[in-house]
Amino acid sequence: MTLETPAHPQLLLANARQSLVRMEETIIFSLIERAQFRQNLEIYRRGAFPALTPCESLVGHLLRETECAHAAMRRYTCPDEHPFFDDLPPPRLPPLAYTGNPLRPNRININARVRAAYETEAIPRLCPAGDDSQYGSSAVCDVACLQALSRRVHFGMFVAESKRLQEPLRFAALLARTDDAELMAAITHPEVEEAVLERVRRKADTYLAELRQSSGTGAIPEAGALVEIYRGLIVPLNKQVQVAYLRATAEH
Amino acid sequence: MTLETPAHPQLLLANARQSLVRMEETIIFSLIERAQFRQNLEIYRRGAFPALTPCESLVGHLLRETECAHAAMRRYTCPDEHPFFDDLPPPRLPPLAYTGNPLRPNRININARVRAAYETEAIPRLCPAGDDSQYGSSAVCDVACLQALSRRVHFGMFVAESKRLQEPLRFAALLARTDDAELMAAITHPEVEEAVLERVRRKADTYLAELRQSSGTGAIPEAGALVEIYRGLIVPLNKQVQVAYLRATAEH
Repeated sequence: MTLETPAHPQLLLANARQSLVRMEETIIFSLIERAQFRQNLEIYRRGAFPALTPCESLVGHLLRETECAHAAMRRYTCPDEHPFFDDLPPPRLPPLAYTGNPLRPNRININARVRAAYETEAIPRLCPAGDDSQYGSSAVCDVACLQALSRRVHFGMFVAESKRLQEPLRFAALLARTDDAELMAAITHPEVEEAVLERVRRKADTYLAELRQSSGTGAIPEAGALVEIYRGLIVPLNKQVQVAYLRATAEH
Repeated sequence: MTLETPAHPQLLLANARQSLVRMEETIIFSLIERAQFRQNLEIYRRGAFPALTPCESLVGHLLRETECAHAAMRRYTCPDEHPFFDDLPPPRLPPLAYTGNPLRPNRININARVRAAYETEAIPRLCPAGDDSQYGSSAVCDVACLQALSRRVHFGMFVAESKRLQEPLRFAALLARTDDAELMAAITHPEVEEAVLERVRRKADTYLAELRQSSGTGAIPEAGALVEIYRGLIVPLNKQVQVAYLRATAEH
């Protein structure tokens, strides 16, 4: 995404939505890859592999190792990246200048919710029940899925900022009140949500039909499972980010 | 893949080919993801980021960090996984028993060739020329691509073993000679290669048409580029593995 603030707020919203559309492939591809393996719930149980990590789960351990490597390469200095762990090493590359970043400074990070929803809601929808002992392969896919979902969910900040820029007076009035319900209603566009879910269904249908035709080994998820992950996890968590961001960056 | 030796060599070959078909999606998805970014050739230049790594390239550094994390989770104890680096930490999980692994013991590893071919042949075909400074995102995609390509290329061992099991006398005679040309001819099935390339083209056409329709941001590769990576890199390196494996495991 071009992170610079365009001259027109409409253009910022259009840019953000374009980026969200492309992220759908990243998310769908990652979820399809994970669905090859069984749920393998043991990899989400903290302390299940004490030789590897005493307190974390196997997935948590690999996620943390991955984030350490990515942090050194300055991943989390980018305004649209948010880590799952907060004790990562500092960047070992000089920071990039994100000139024109439209976001106001904030510390919003709902990755704990992303991870919990992925492990307890997405995995049971996505993968066949049971254990195939493919722990490493499953965990590698999980890390890719979690990073893609986190980026998508936190992208709500760009969406929220562009909505506020389009209607500054309306949002100032909403933010002057303590009730979040009206704010949530103001950022909710049901027709946009329905269009997203329809597009995800069409994409999933296309990709999964191709996969089913050539088959090969490995389970193939239902398109409905991918749509439900969007409906039950991505869309609501994205809106939580939007509300939290607007609250945290409101002028007083 | 089920790594056990089936009762019939034909079944082993069929199983191996089924696994290869499913790997096509992993490879195509990974390459499509990488193609969002420019070639960014700086990330393949050794010593270009001395603060991160004095001798390796940025991609080599991330690949090594990733392999260290995966090695601890016993990735390279699996018969179909081969690391790019040979100084990795030992597994910190107890080894899995791969009962009935059909491969004979060997130390074949042509990842140096996989990496060189990927960086010098695949990337220029796949990505738009130039530099968009998306080094971290590109490198994360590169690691996924390299791991998928390595697995696909080294899977030639299973294919070669199943061919030898089907015609033991013929392969014993071929291996008694020092000339590799006849051995290469014996493992080469042009009609199978053509079928692979046709299937990859069909899959790439389907996936890329869907991506082009919804578009979003980011460059979209040509289906022809993906087919050429199969034709110029995957197929020939896979056959090199087959020949090397048969040679290394021949009875004397």
